[in-house]
Amino acid sequence: MDFSSLDPVVNPRSIAIIGASDEPVRIGGRPISYMLQRGFQGAIYPVNPKRPTVQGLKSYADVNSLPETPDVAIVAVPSQAALQAVEDLGARGCKGAIVFTAGFAEMDAGGAAAQDVMVASARKHGMRLMGPNCLGLFNSAINFYATFSASFESGWPLPGRIGIASQSGAYGTHLYSIARDREIGTQICITTGNEAEVTLSDVLGWMAQSPDVDVICAYAEGIREGKNFLAALDLARRNRKPIVMMKVGRSALGQAAAQSHTASIAGDDAVTDAVLQEFGVVRARNTEELLDIAYAATKRIYPVRNTLGVVTVSGGAGVLISDVAESIGFEMPEMPQPAQERLRGFVPFCAPRNPVDCTAQAINQTELIGEFATAMVVDGGYTSCLGFFTQVGASKSVAPKLRAQMKAVADQHQDRLWALSIIAPRDMIREYEKDGFLIFEDPTRAVVALHAMGRFGEAFARATPPAPALPQVSLPATTPTEAEGKRILAAAGIPAVPERACADVEAAVAAAREFGFPVVMKILSPDILHKSEIGGVLLDIASEAAVREGFATLLARAAERAPGARIEGVLVAKQIKGAVEMALGLLRDPVFGPVAMVGLGGIFIEVLKDVSFRRCPFGVAEAEAMIRSLKGFPLLDGVRGRRKADVKALAQALANLSTFAVAAGPRLLSVDINPLLVLPEGEGAFAADAVLEIGE
Amino acid sequence: MDFSSLDPVVNPRSIAIIGASDEPVRIGGRPISYMLQRGFQGAIYPVNPKRPTVQGLKSYADVNSLPETPDVAIVAVPSQAALQAVEDLGARGCKGAIVFTAGFAEMDAGGAAAQDVMVASARKHGMRLMGPNCLGLFNSAINFYATFSASFESGWPLPGRIGIASQSGAYGTHLYSIARDREIGTQICITTGNEAEVTLSDVLGWMAQSPDVDVICAYAEGIREGKNFLAALDLARRNRKPIVMMKVGRSALGQAAAQSHTASIAGDDAVTDAVLQEFGVVRARNTEELLDIAYAATKRIYPVRNTLGVVTVSGGAGVLISDVAESIGFEMPEMPQPAQERLRGFVPFCAPRNPVDCTAQAINQTELIGEFATAMVVDGGYTSCLGFFTQVGASKSVAPKLRAQMKAVADQHQDRLWALSIIAPRDMIREYEKDGFLIFEDPTRAVVALHAMGRFGEAFARATPPAPALPQVSLPATTPTEAEGKRILAAAGIPAVPERACADVEAAVAAAREFGFPVVMKILSPDILHKSEIGGVLLDIASEAAVREGFATLLARAAERAPGARIEGVLVAKQIKGAVEMALGLLRDPVFGPVAMVGLGGIFIEVLKDVSFRRCPFGVAEAEAMIRSLKGFPLLDGVRGRRKADVKALAQALANLSTFAVAAGPRLLSVDINPLLVLPEGEGAFAADAVLEIGE
Repeated sequence: MDFSSLDPVVNPRSIAIIGASDEPVRIGGRPISYMLQRGFQGAIYPVNPKRPTVQGLKSYADVNSLPETPDVAIVAVPSQAALQAVEDLGARGCKGAIVFTAGFAEMDAGGAAAQDVMVASARKHGMRLMGPNCLGLFNSAINFYATFSASFESGWPLPGRIGIASQSGAYGTHLYSIARDREIGTQICITTGNEAEVTLSDVLGWMAQSPDVDVICAYAEGIREGKNFLAALDLARRNRKPIVMMKVGRSALGQAAAQSHTASIAGDDAVTDAVLQEFGVVRARNTEELLDIAYAATKRIYPVRNTLGVVTVSGGAGVLISDVAESIGFEMPEMPQPAQERLRGFVPFCAPRNPVDCTAQAINQTELIGEFATAMVVDGGYTSCLGFFTQVGASKSVAPKLRAQMKAVADQHQDRLWALSIIAPRDMIREYEKDGFLIFEDPTRAVVALHAMGRFGEAFARATPPAPALPQVSLPATTPTEAEGKRILAAAGIPAVPERACADVEAAVAAAREFGFPVVMKILSPDILHKSEIGGVLLDIASEAAVREGFATLLARAAERAPGARIEGVLVAKQIKGAVEMALGLLRDPVFGPVAMVGLGGIFIEVLKDVSFRRCPFGVAEAEAMIRSLKGFPLLDGVRGRRKADVKALAQALANLSTFAVAAGPRLLSVDINPLLVLPEGEGAFAADAVLEIGE
Repeated sequence: MDFSSLDPVVNPRSIAIIGASDEPVRIGGRPISYMLQRGFQGAIYPVNPKRPTVQGLKSYADVNSLPETPDVAIVAVPSQAALQAVEDLGARGCKGAIVFTAGFAEMDAGGAAAQDVMVASARKHGMRLMGPNCLGLFNSAINFYATFSASFESGWPLPGRIGIASQSGAYGTHLYSIARDREIGTQICITTGNEAEVTLSDVLGWMAQSPDVDVICAYAEGIREGKNFLAALDLARRNRKPIVMMKVGRSALGQAAAQSHTASIAGDDAVTDAVLQEFGVVRARNTEELLDIAYAATKRIYPVRNTLGVVTVSGGAGVLISDVAESIGFEMPEMPQPAQERLRGFVPFCAPRNPVDCTAQAINQTELIGEFATAMVVDGGYTSCLGFFTQVGASKSVAPKLRAQMKAVADQHQDRLWALSIIAPRDMIREYEKDGFLIFEDPTRAVVALHAMGRFGEAFARATPPAPALPQVSLPATTPTEAEGKRILAAAGIPAVPERACADVEAAVAAAREFGFPVVMKILSPDILHKSEIGGVLLDIASEAAVREGFATLLARAAERAPGARIEGVLVAKQIKGAVEMALGLLRDPVFGPVAMVGLGGIFIEVLKDVSFRRCPFGVAEAEAMIRSLKGFPLLDGVRGRRKADVKALAQALANLSTFAVAAGPRLLSVDINPLLVLPEGEGAFAADAVLEIGE
């Protein structure tokens, strides 16, 4: 997919401002004022019929009287006039409109209708439309400021190859301001407002192919469409551009807040999360983490197997760092024994394991710091090296020697990520940064940022898995009975527990005898989806007499608790013992289509929410990775001397469910297989209960 | 307990420096230099036999020639001389020694022995001993600097009522330096080094009763003793002094690092965590969080039921804040409907639910900000109010009006916690802080800090629960069989599932007939603790024939898989269905004594680690709170239409286990009840398996 249609919007040679103001603090005045102050090299055409000039520039009465067709135009006039302006711009051949005007879909149904008209207008002329209700964008490399944000009061953007892409104007500029305060360069910032036409996906895709952006900081409240979004993430991954994203709306409360705000769609956060993971997008928990990760990513070092080596002057800080590393799964391998011995030779009472505590001794004998740092890279082989030097890093007596020692080692090993935890005045930090170090006051933040580099590295190194083959599927016209549902799934490669639909008690007895006791009996009805809730499931039926009694019991319960339900008899199934109960599921996400799910079965899935999602279709390798990511995975992996479960069979069933879902098409609304009984290694996995929902 | 013996150490009228140096940058010179620069009002007595004066002060040859007995002395001489100095100081009647000298227990066995001699010396004379191997302390209120830290290069401590208590000197001063950079006043900082005599507990206790400290920031790697620690936490709670603590060594890696470092004991982190929770100590995840919480606590507003109201100019930030609030359990109740209507009257398209998005409209009409803020406190009744204004808070045009509006409302409601998320230069932030606002750049950090105030409030309001009555317990001489163990527990109020030890197969058949089928059969042997690992447990024994077959199977397996084990027969028990399987446990913590545990039963306890701990003894109310804190609690609470389980019976069993543990005394090493079968409400909870370990 090509995202270059945004080029003229972000890199224009000329711009018109519809609703230009002579006042530099008005919405229609700010962009002009900013561009004049900073010296935008292209042509600026104010459009304001009431004035001959605007901020010293010749003003034009309308779009048609402009001396040339501008690449892009800002629209900052009331909504009716904005509709007309968009039509005029499109007709004139302008390539993009950035609409500041509010009062559209975020307001009411009337506004939404007007917005639709505006979008139709833009589409008709092949013009890209940003907003409406948007704060605009800037590209400081060419001093292009198509925004009315007041954020530049505290300073102009610094050079730097981080791009900000944000659905929220207020949050996008909040992020810019914090980055500016930290002296992190964010040269390009694009906010998308109502996303009537240009969406966050377009912006991500554009940044993914832009030579001006190395690292993408994104903020999203909800993803509106899947195709472009997936294409943008895929392009970024293939171009080795890390995306670090704040996707809000994780919680129920947050989703409620998101729905009450602008015109956003909150979507299923867990599904979005799975998609982000699939493409190696790292999700930040807060603004600091977002910027920490982007800052580290500007080094463009993305280790495929990332390991952390820590050298510290405080044993306590070493412990703290270890805690954080373990909690996020950042490997800290031990230093090789000979290196540990050598370090003990330098400082007898150092702790050379990793974290390497070189103790205050290294502060007194600064030449030791170089020895320790060299050992980290040469002997430890760590791809990420973190030094904890705290206020010592700013000490007048020690800092110059410390800096020289560290720089000498880092210069020789520029393929590593080097971070220092130091407390120092801004100018001193700048010096360390010039030497090539990432500087973090808090060591725990350094650990999180460095770890993310390895997550990017893994995603960049990952080959796109081959598209799995799809089965032939023919769905019934309506939601099938459990038995029919299982036959359909079995045909798709998800076998069921041996079972038979029995219309009468003699058939049930025969089936039980054939499968062997004990058996499970379940009421059979197309009208009863959740059988256990009406007492429609009987376990441990251990004799023919019990089968007869159970048959009568089930019919009686159905008559009493689900009167009117069509009863087709009773399902008799072999009762399997010693299996691990898992659950497989399939849901249709409005944005990303069919999504498969695996988790611990039974009620644990609801209480503990230990589940893993992935977009369909996928192969066995991805299915197994999903299974291994579960917290409860040890239950399948032979915990406490149990036999290992047949994870391969489980993974195959999960992958088969994913291809079945795609082949079945949108009429398949959902599948719920719970439990799926996973037997010991080599013995298979069988659906014991399955509900398919079929739509029209 | 009285912690006042540290008074002369932290608030001395006179100090001697043993090993005083004329060089202001030497370890023995720094304290003198600092105190001279800052103007310590007490007497400073350098002790250095080689010089007539030190840094302009008269120098003394030894302790005995001092003109008066100093309140406290710094010891900064090599270890042999340090031992003598401590003895001399003690003999002279000095009240405290602060030993900088290293090379004691942190080094080797010889050092540990020397340290013991030093401690004995101090104890003999009733002198408190800080360190050895300690960085010392400062009390800037009286300009007392008994430390050789180089942290003051970047600035002297600011006034402020936060005390720092740290086991690590490097980390304690790291914390001080970061606080100083953030202009947070930490007037007193005490580091404890090797803790040979004075421990962190003493320091916490002293701060808890000191009129100079309102808020305590603590850093711990391991707690060495329980009694003083508990007394200190209890005193702090009763005196309404919040303690926010960084306790490192959560992870296996962190604990390994802690053990390889100095002379610390890592202890069981989960147990320490339970103790901290019991006393309302809030545990911080990193340095920033530690300081954020301490900073917020200086307001001394600790709501008992803390609710968060948010007013924001960015809907996106509102979503982000809601996500964080929900994830940490900070309540954000909805605004009352009439108030929502009123706010819609001001800004038709605001989102008035909470978070209250007043939109950019409020920036244009700043008088609305006061209306919205008033609604938060008056209508919403929130105890914590957070405003997200980002860079608008620093805007030259808007900020003065915004500040005035907010201040007017905050002044009228000084019982609330007021926090603003603002990006502004330091001098402007200082102005907001002068107005009474807590200022956080990142709103998510504000949420975490404000939430902690409610946790303190709840702990301060909590009445100390009455000590539960202890049962009469007589333990057997050695680890009992399962049947004996259950009899002992039943006598203590933890009933077991009906069962009987059967020496022969006929007895087993009789027992099964009496209990009713199905039954469970288990091998009975004092030598086989984990029966299931040798196949020594049979379930679903449904007939007399099966009992006979099972008896033979169990004996055969025991003979094959545990040869030599003494076999006493087979245990026959009623098999209970429909119960929730829980686990109760008891362990003996080396620091805190008996600790009880409750969690989901079966293997889930090991895989999912969803457990809750508490120091013994405790009553039913505390037991129920432990149970309700489990992630898996919904399993007991009637999830998905199941019957609720008998939580009262479970809580009673847990509380009974806790009193049993204390009454049984230290010979009871551990109890493992897994599963404890919890039947539906009113039907009780029964131990199905129990292992008691008895020591000598």
